[in-house]
Amino acid sequence: METKNIGLRGVEVADTRISNIDGEKGRLIYRGYDIMDLVENSTFEETAYLLLYDNLPTKVQLDDFNAKLIEARYIPKQMQKNMGNWRKDADPMDMLQAFVSALAGYYDEEFSNKDASYEKAINLIAKVPTIIASWQRIRDGLPLVDPDPTLSHAANFLYMMTGEKPDAEVEKIFDRCLILHADHTFNASTFTARQVASTRAHMYSASSAAIGALSGELHGGANTEVMKMLLDIQEIDRVESWIKERMEKGDRIMGMGHAVYRTYDPRATVLKKLSSELAEKTKEPWFAITEKVETTTIKLMKEMKGKDIYPNVDLYSASLYYMLKIPVDLNTPIFAISRVVGWAAHIIEEKFAEAAPKPALYRPKATYVGKYCGPEGCKYERLDLRK
Amino acid sequence: METKNIGLRGVEVADTRISNIDGEKGRLIYRGYDIMDLVENSTFEETAYLLLYDNLPTKVQLDDFNAKLIEARYIPKQMQKNMGNWRKDADPMDMLQAFVSALAGYYDEEFSNKDASYEKAINLIAKVPTIIASWQRIRDGLPLVDPDPTLSHAANFLYMMTGEKPDAEVEKIFDRCLILHADHTFNASTFTARQVASTRAHMYSASSAAIGALSGELHGGANTEVMKMLLDIQEIDRVESWIKERMEKGDRIMGMGHAVYRTYDPRATVLKKLSSELAEKTKEPWFAITEKVETTTIKLMKEMKGKDIYPNVDLYSASLYYMLKIPVDLNTPIFAISRVVGWAAHIIEEKFAEAAPKPALYRPKATYVGKYCGPEGCKYERLDLRK
Repeated sequence: METKNIGLRGVEVADTRISNIDGEKGRLIYRGYDIMDLVENSTFEETAYLLLYDNLPTKVQLDDFNAKLIEARYIPKQMQKNMGNWRKDADPMDMLQAFVSALAGYYDEEFSNKDASYEKAINLIAKVPTIIASWQRIRDGLPLVDPDPTLSHAANFLYMMTGEKPDAEVEKIFDRCLILHADHTFNASTFTARQVASTRAHMYSASSAAIGALSGELHGGANTEVMKMLLDIQEIDRVESWIKERMEKGDRIMGMGHAVYRTYDPRATVLKKLSSELAEKTKEPWFAITEKVETTTIKLMKEMKGKDIYPNVDLYSASLYYMLKIPVDLNTPIFAISRVVGWAAHIIEEKFAEAAPKPALYRPKATYVGKYCGPEGCKYERLDLRK
Repeated sequence: METKNIGLRGVEVADTRISNIDGEKGRLIYRGYDIMDLVENSTFEETAYLLLYDNLPTKVQLDDFNAKLIEARYIPKQMQKNMGNWRKDADPMDMLQAFVSALAGYYDEEFSNKDASYEKAINLIAKVPTIIASWQRIRDGLPLVDPDPTLSHAANFLYMMTGEKPDAEVEKIFDRCLILHADHTFNASTFTARQVASTRAHMYSASSAAIGALSGELHGGANTEVMKMLLDIQEIDRVESWIKERMEKGDRIMGMGHAVYRTYDPRATVLKKLSSELAEKTKEPWFAITEKVETTTIKLMKEMKGKDIYPNVDLYSASLYYMLKIPVDLNTPIFAISRVVGWAAHIIEEKFAEAAPKPALYRPKATYVGKYCGPEGCKYERLDLRK
């Protein structure tokens, strides 16, 4: 009795208009537009609008969307107070999961029509960066920094976190990172969000669940693991022996390989370029070490298993975020700043899809392989007679 | 291009040793034992042990398990303080989702080996009732009630919520409700828990996500909807016209019908009996109204569509909880008090399954049906040129 659909790989579960991956060609499409085009020409805010509303905005629509996002950036002071009661060494992803869920304790969580859902989506996208930046300030014992309405989404986050406004180059790099991470079809966290929404749970609830899935080291947690690897390697001369030792033990090299792409992940292409540019500016070794991790893993994989392997989105984002002075354990929360856009779009699609086939509550089948004592079940024995 | 696996119905995704449903015969099995046998002879604590450890406990094992559960009932005072900052009319499921996630802010969330996972499971099972009871007292402006180590899991919850120790009959009824709701294979919340755990996220994170799924009105939220229906009907003479009106509009009748059972849900059989017994004691009309909802829906479904329909687990739990003086909006949180046992067992199975095929990160396939302008993607137009 063998189960056929381990990890649901290749199992089609629903239609989507939101994004598409061409794993063979290494192409990622948001609502019809190639991310290479968006990363070159668009901004995070515009891309968020595109993902939510299925169209690029007009100037009026974009101004209105921006104004709403800026207005919604504040989180309740009381929420920041509650954060102060957490232990300072808590995982920021735990904090984020709890406080996104807690948004429902402050804002009306009704979620029964499409317009209201868009409002919640904007509220959520605007507040996730503030939750993360607040936590960073609180755990470092620093005063909180209010959002600055003159700054873009990307710049405002960095400002709230560090207290300093980033220069235009850093802002642009971070904005591009946000564009790249905003959606990726039915990855584990997005599918979790859709699944929770399929029960008719509301947007904060479904997004909080998605954050839980993103926290796992096999999903969003991977970029944190990449940076831990780089810090452990420390020097470029140690890369080869470090990677070899792991691969001979059969360990995965974090940041390398992907379930869907059979070629270079287009996001990795961009992130590699951005990381290289930043390294020239900061004179740090992390880009060079990362590049060496890539070439070494590719070479050894070919030698040891005769297989091709490519970097995924996590490999070059790690060094990039490190050079942006983002604490290592915030790599995954920052992934959430961007991916929450995709979650919101998918939650709305899951609930309000107009075309058939419409999504239904997910309830897969399990294959029972446990104890069996006949059709009547095992006989319950009295406690005092049990051995 | 039609998607084949809507709601993943009938799609086998993993092996399990935890529970099995025979939808044709109306039988639910926990780890080899029929729930009818367990509900007659076992207790919630013993059933929880069975679900977690794959065997009924010996006396020594059960005493040890009970002692650990009792010791873990307290939640941090600071957490209760934070609850006080929520708006009093927040949905208790939102509160539960946020504070289960927040447990990771107080307790070490590492979850890398099986023994540690069992410890987290016990911590979680012990604390969920305290979180719910605390919220109930806080929103009613009443002083908190500490757990009583001399009381069973069932009695202690009712005591913490009401401030009064339940009599033996009420305790037994509630204990049986907890046994009946503890697991149900890959329902939407349990599958959510497994999915989040498949990324290697920890137990609090996966359980919090499951609470999100349970909150939806198509899943755990249904028992709250049933009680709202009964309160709206109010009198037994109004049942027929009320049901008829809904069914003619094509509405579902809450508490009737199930995705898996093709006959009487065995849990409904027991809950109907318990509700009937309690109604004799309290002289309230809710059992009689519920029974009339059942017979009317069955009759009209046969007349209107020529189909059979049966009550599910939610139909009779609603009146039962109402007669136990449990606030209507706590019906779903109470479902969680019990179902958290199943979640914990499934999370452990998902992460530490020893037999092949081992579970893998869930990543299903989406069918892209969105905008398409050719293989290069749609052309990005400058904002000022867009219409």
